Amino acid sequence: MDYSRVFAQAIDRLHAEGRYRVFIDILRNKGAFPNARCFAGHNGPKPITVWCSNDYLAMGQHPKVIAAMEEALHDVGAGSGGTRNIGGNTHYHIDLEHELADLHGKEAALLFTSGYVSNEATLSTIAKLLPGCIIFSDELNHASMIAGIRNSGCEKRVFRHNDLQHLEELLAAEDEGVPKLIAFESVYSMDGDIAPIHAICDLADKYNALTYLDEVHAVGMYGTRGGGISERDECANRLTIVEGTLGKAFGVMGGYIATDRTIVDVIRSYAPGFIFTTSLSPVLVAGALASVRHLKGSCEERDGQQAAAARLKAMFDAAGLPVMDSTTHIVPLMVGDPVKAKKISDILLAEYGVYVQPINYPTVPRGTERLRFTPGPAHDEAMMRDLTAALCEIWGRLELRLAA
Amino acid sequence: MDYSRVFAQAIDRLHAEGRYRVFIDILRNKGAFPNARCFAGHNGPKPITVWCSNDYLAMGQHPKVIAAMEEALHDVGAGSGGTRNIGGNTHYHIDLEHELADLHGKEAALLFTSGYVSNEATLSTIAKLLPGCIIFSDELNHASMIAGIRNSGCEKRVFRHNDLQHLEELLAAEDEGVPKLIAFESVYSMDGDIAPIHAICDLADKYNALTYLDEVHAVGMYGTRGGGISERDECANRLTIVEGTLGKAFGVMGGYIATDRTIVDVIRSYAPGFIFTTSLSPVLVAGALASVRHLKGSCEERDGQQAAAARLKAMFDAAGLPVMDSTTHIVPLMVGDPVKAKKISDILLAEYGVYVQPINYPTVPRGTERLRFTPGPAHDEAMMRDLTAALCEIWGRLELRLAA
Ligand SMILES: Cc1ncc(COP(=O)(O)O)c(C=O)c1O
Ligand SMILES: Cc1ncc(COP(=O)(O)O)c(C=O)c1O
Repeated sequence: MDYSRVFAQAIDRLHAEGRYRVFIDILRNKGAFPNARCFAGHNGPKPITVWCSNDYLAMGQHPKVIAAMEEALHDVGAGSGGTRNIGGNTHYHIDLEHELADLHGKEAALLFTSGYVSNEATLSTIAKLLPGCIIFSDELNHASMIAGIRNSGCEKRVFRHNDLQHLEELLAAEDEGVPKLIAFESVYSMDGDIAPIHAICDLADKYNALTYLDEVHAVGMYGTRGGGISERDECANRLTIVEGTLGKAFGVMGGYIATDRTIVDVIRSYAPGFIFTTSLSPVLVAGALASVRHLKGSCEERDGQQAAAARLKAMFDAAGLPVMDSTTHIVPLMVGDPVKAKKISDILLAEYGVYVQPINYPTVPRGTERLRFTPGPAHDEAMMRDLTAALCEIWGRLELRLAA
Repeated sequence: MDYSRVFAQAIDRLHAEGRYRVFIDILRNKGAFPNARCFAGHNGPKPITVWCSNDYLAMGQHPKVIAAMEEALHDVGAGSGGTRNIGGNTHYHIDLEHELADLHGKEAALLFTSGYVSNEATLSTIAKLLPGCIIFSDELNHASMIAGIRNSGCEKRVFRHNDLQHLEELLAAEDEGVPKLIAFESVYSMDGDIAPIHAICDLADKYNALTYLDEVHAVGMYGTRGGGISERDECANRLTIVEGTLGKAFGVMGGYIATDRTIVDVIRSYAPGFIFTTSLSPVLVAGALASVRHLKGSCEERDGQQAAAARLKAMFDAAGLPVMDSTTHIVPLMVGDPVKAKKISDILLAEYGVYVQPINYPTVPRGTERLRFTPGPAHDEAMMRDLTAALCEIWGRLELRLAA
């Protein structure tokens, strides 16, 4: 058994497929987002504009968030020093859980160290407690949900993306008495489309299924208080569990679920991924608390983001660039080839000081490789004009297809 | 299917077994650790002394750590805003990975959002890349390793705790050509004993197995630079992968592995738990960097901790309290019953202002429920005298067994 050879071959396969990833080395400039500094391959840091951050509303730089984190840092210190059960349960954690329960109109909420962990831990545990449970999963669900479903050991039925008819066929095919759980997302982050939540809840009611909605790319950004698409569409009360992250629009780090008191109690008590890990740093929790509270009361950031996304889509469209059909704040440009997607991204960074990461398999299906832009309230019109002109130049240079 | 009833029954089972957990609500006082404030069930916060923190060396309150976090907060903001591959790779992450590789004398290191995630993601991925791999796992391995092993889908052989003969029997029983991985811990945190690392490496050499060592309860605390038991015993170079946390002795939050460059590249490229999640906040990374660097150069905290642990063990022993046979900084007192363990802890908190969490199943096997004390450099002799006196009073009041 030659272990080194096996591992080296695993890396070779990535190179051969053109999807070996190189992490670009950056530092954001606080107060000047989307401006940042890039370190790799230059003489000293080079200024760049970031177009692919998931700090969608620049809340990671908001004065209230920074001030809250600084205060917590000085009041209680860096880490929590323990798991939630053993010394790591702080007053900040409890306050944030109340705030998040309120955000989604639920009885209770539970914090995790990330959105990934919240999906993995909750789905694997809840389904394990329901013997024989079948999980109905949208085919484009995020890797963290797929991991949770797989680790639950339950049977899984995959329905075609946002396809209600297919979902109903699969639900109807199962025994009435069997426990069922439908797992899906509100905003699909690589395409920018939205699930028909009410219609899925109708099916859940009809077939007595639980529902689990990942709102990771919607919390903070939709609904009058930032409660996500389920707030905007007034259906949060129809969902069993709403899951979200503190690391994207809220600008910090961490994840959570909001649901009824008993389910929180069950997950808190049975999920290894919740129990056996140091709890979120109180510094992060304090920052997230400030961010959630601010976005409950302010629509300025959300409105600015929607305006920026609409403007960028219109510019791409007018220039004939193959912008995908997104109904949200996400602006994807289809390329369809991993090597070309990386090439465009490399040129943008080296020649234009623009940072946008190519999105390749396994993040998206092979053949649908793309560039994914996330304009926010701080991306202004001049930046967009420069970006569009750069893309047009590169599209011509590489002889890429324009939109029909 | 009545879902609510199933979930309510799951909670009832915990109450019936006396192991329903209530999280106590505390805030530490920065600069005055182990002093803290407790919120629940009092009129306003009540001062307490924390005896069960895993911020073992009080680095979460160290001025260098606080200053580094404050600087990062003002330089780059709260969160990273992306996964490591998409916008969330900062210069801080790269620096810390270099520092950790150096700490363990390895070629490379890789950061994760927690020690739990580092174990789960690495073990599940590395084993999956080795078709037919068999994993040899110490019976007391932490839940996060067990999760990783389970999620790898590999066959598992559990060897009796630290039992070299049993491990060898299990290794010898397998085909020579089959890939093998031995997973174990250096310091077992609930008992405080230490694995025979050299002897396990001898077996790994003999049977051509990879080794995976969890040093979560040792990094920062053992070895002249805080490289853990593998530094102290001079065997880091014999191990394939060393895993650690940034959330215990380093006082912040996060996890990592240190290993050779190819394995880091493999995990970075294939592990969903690494790829599909927002990277650690640069604020945390900056704090961890300061902490690791400080403990590389300073032995004061380690020496203080060892002295405190020796003193507390001696006092417990002299008082006839059933202190367990620990060879490390961990001081466990055996109780052997979940209800009594909780009762002692409740009295300590309510009447003595002492916080020590009862350790019940599933954290330890049933029938071995205990109190676990983690004295650090800041726990002084007077605190220890008060604690010992309080325990003696409660032991008498509840008619508990003293040591033979
Ligand atoms: C749909 C979805 N769910 C969950 C996650 C994980 O959230 P987090 O980054 O907080 O781990 C992500 C992205 O990272 C995501 O895109
Ligand atoms: C042995 C061991 N490994 C891993 C972990 C997980 O580390 P973290 O708290 O950083 O998730 C813990 C405790 O939390 C542990 O005790």
